[in-house]
Amino acid sequence: MRVLTSRPLNAETVLPAQVGVITPNARFYVRNHFDIPELDPATWRLSVSGQVDRPLSLSLAELRRLPSRSLVVTLECAGNGRALLDRPVEGEQWQLGAVSTAEWTGIPLAAVLDRAGIGRGAREIVFRGADRGTPRGQPEALRFERSLPLDDARHPDVVLAYAMNGEPLPAEHGFPLRLVVPGWYGMASVKWLAEIEVADRSFAGYFQVDRYVIDDEPLLQIRVRALITEPADGATVPRGDLAIRGLAWSGRAPVTRVDVALGDRWSEAQLLDEPLRHAWRRWELTTRVDSAGDLVLRARATDASGDTQPDRPFWNRLGYGNNVVQTVRVEVHDA
Amino acid sequence: MRVLTSRPLNAETVLPAQVGVITPNARFYVRNHFDIPELDPATWRLSVSGQVDRPLSLSLAELRRLPSRSLVVTLECAGNGRALLDRPVEGEQWQLGAVSTAEWTGIPLAAVLDRAGIGRGAREIVFRGADRGTPRGQPEALRFERSLPLDDARHPDVVLAYAMNGEPLPAEHGFPLRLVVPGWYGMASVKWLAEIEVADRSFAGYFQVDRYVIDDEPLLQIRVRALITEPADGATVPRGDLAIRGLAWSGRAPVTRVDVALGDRWSEAQLLDEPLRHAWRRWELTTRVDSAGDLVLRARATDASGDTQPDRPFWNRLGYGNNVVQTVRVEVHDA
Repeated sequence: MRVLTSRPLNAETVLPAQVGVITPNARFYVRNHFDIPELDPATWRLSVSGQVDRPLSLSLAELRRLPSRSLVVTLECAGNGRALLDRPVEGEQWQLGAVSTAEWTGIPLAAVLDRAGIGRGAREIVFRGADRGTPRGQPEALRFERSLPLDDARHPDVVLAYAMNGEPLPAEHGFPLRLVVPGWYGMASVKWLAEIEVADRSFAGYFQVDRYVIDDEPLLQIRVRALITEPADGATVPRGDLAIRGLAWSGRAPVTRVDVALGDRWSEAQLLDEPLRHAWRRWELTTRVDSAGDLVLRARATDASGDTQPDRPFWNRLGYGNNVVQTVRVEVHDA
Repeated sequence: MRVLTSRPLNAETVLPAQVGVITPNARFYVRNHFDIPELDPATWRLSVSGQVDRPLSLSLAELRRLPSRSLVVTLECAGNGRALLDRPVEGEQWQLGAVSTAEWTGIPLAAVLDRAGIGRGAREIVFRGADRGTPRGQPEALRFERSLPLDDARHPDVVLAYAMNGEPLPAEHGFPLRLVVPGWYGMASVKWLAEIEVADRSFAGYFQVDRYVIDDEPLLQIRVRALITEPADGATVPRGDLAIRGLAWSGRAPVTRVDVALGDRWSEAQLLDEPLRHAWRRWELTTRVDSAGDLVLRARATDASGDTQPDRPFWNRLGYGNNVVQTVRVEVHDA
C-alpha cells in the first residue's frame, strides 16, 4: 500500500500487486475522512427513522436474521487519478490505486426499508456514519453523511455489508456495517453505518453538495477506465514475448472493449473470464516486442454506453472523475 | 482452523466462519500428503516432457507471459465427511470442513500443452508435485503424482494457478504453481507442480490406483452436498426469527435446489446470488421457530443431473465421497 495520510488513514493499492479480480482485504484502498471510530459490535445498533411506518433500532444479530446477499463489487474513489491532473488541485493526491474489488456479504438495503415501511412523503434516504470530525475550513465538527434517491436505494444490489471477502469488515472498511452501492463512486458506500433516515426533501450536507460535485453537479456513477497492472511502470522487460494485462470497469455499463497501444500502434486486447455485473474485468494482450529501447504502453476502455477515456486529464476544481488514459513506460532490453 | 495432523499439515475450516462465497486464504482447508516442499521461485522450472513435439522447461516469468485465466473454484477433499461414517475407517478424520472456495489465477493448461505440441500416441497427462515421502505401508519414498485423461486436461477451465484470491499461492497451497481441476475432488489439483508428462498409457501410480478409489473405481467429480453454516452445531438461538444459511455444490451439474428440515418439516430454501460455474452457491431459509427446546436441522442439495444426498453415510473401505445429509442440533430458548 502507498499511504497518503495516516490521520485520517488514506492509502492506495500498488497496481502490479493486483493479479486477480479480488483484492485481498489488506490491499484494498482506504479512503477515510475522519479517524476510524471504534465500535463495539455487542452494543452497536442501526437506527432507521424519518418518514417510515415503524422506526427501527436493530442489533447485528437481528440484522443477520434478515435475508442475505453476496456480490463482487468494484469500488473506486472519486478522486482516483487526481495526482495526474496537469494543474494540481487540493485533496488527497491519489495516483491510480484508489480502486479495488471485494466480495461483499450483507443484507439487501431494501429488506430493511421494507421492514420499516417507507412513508408517502419519502424522497431520499440519508446514511450517516459513526465517523466525525471538522473538515478544513468548516466551522464545526460533522459526521460523514450521504443520501441516495429512493429508487437507487431500493435497487436489489445495494447491500448493508457485514463481511468482505469472507471476513468480518476490517475496522478501516467500516466495521461492523457499511453500505455498498455498486456502480457508484465510493463516497456513496457509507462506512461505520449508524443511522438511516428516510427524508422528505433533498439532502444538502457537506459531503453531498460541497464535496463530490463537479461544477455543482453531483458525482454518481463511476466513469469508464482501464488500468495496466503488468508490466509495472518503469519496469525492464526482455525482448520477445510480452504480456500486457490489466483491469477495466465502468459504473454505467459493461466494458465492451479495451484497446492497448505499444507506442503508436493500437491493438484490441482480449477481455478475460466471465463478466461479473458490478466488478472490473481482466483483460490482456499477449504480443512480441522485437527491438530494445524505451516503450510507452497505454490502455483505453470503452463501455456499452459508448463512453470511453480521454487522452488528456479532465480538469475540475476538486479533481474528481479524472479517467485519463494511463501511460506506462517500460524499457525493453536484449534478453 | 481445526488441525488434524501437523506433519504433514492437514487442517479443516470451521463452518460457521464461512460467510461468503470466497474462503480467505488463511482459512482454506489444507490437505497435504507429505511435508511442504520449499521451492525457490527464481530457480523453479516446470518441465513438460513425454509424448510431445517440443519438450519444455519453463520459468515462472516465461509462464507469466502466456495467456491468463481467473476463475472461482470450490475444491473439496475426497475424504471430507469421513469422520461421519458409522463404521470408522483409517485416514484423516475430516468432519465437514475439508471444502473451500477461492479465486484462482493462472495459465490455462491447454496453452502450455499447445506450446509443447501433443504427440499422436498421447492418452493421459501425468502431473508430478515436488512433494515426496513414504506413505504408511509403502516400501519406498514416492512423489505425489496424478493423471488426467487428455480430454479432461484440455478443458479450458483447467488452470496452472500462481495466485489464490489475489495473492501469490501460499506455501501450503502449492507455491509457486499448482494445478486446479474444477469439479474434481481436490486430489486432482496437484500442488507444487514440477513436471507434466504426456503419457501413451494409463498411469498406475499409488495415488491413482491404491488411493482415491472406491472399490477400484477412480474418484472423479465431486458429489452433490449442502452444508449448514448458520446456525452453528450446538448453538443456542432465540425463539422467533431464524435464518438458516449454508452452501451447496456439485462437481457434476449445477445445484438446482436445497431442502431444509426443521425437525421433520421440510421446506425449500432460496438459492442466493448469481451462480458461478465452478463454485458453491449460497442458500438460505428465513423462518420462525415459536417453541423453545431442542431442534434438529438438516439440509439436502439436489443437482441438475438429479443427484441428491443420502440420509445414511455411504460406507467404503477408504472412506471417500461420503456426502451424507448433515445434521445440526440447536437449542431454542425464550428470548
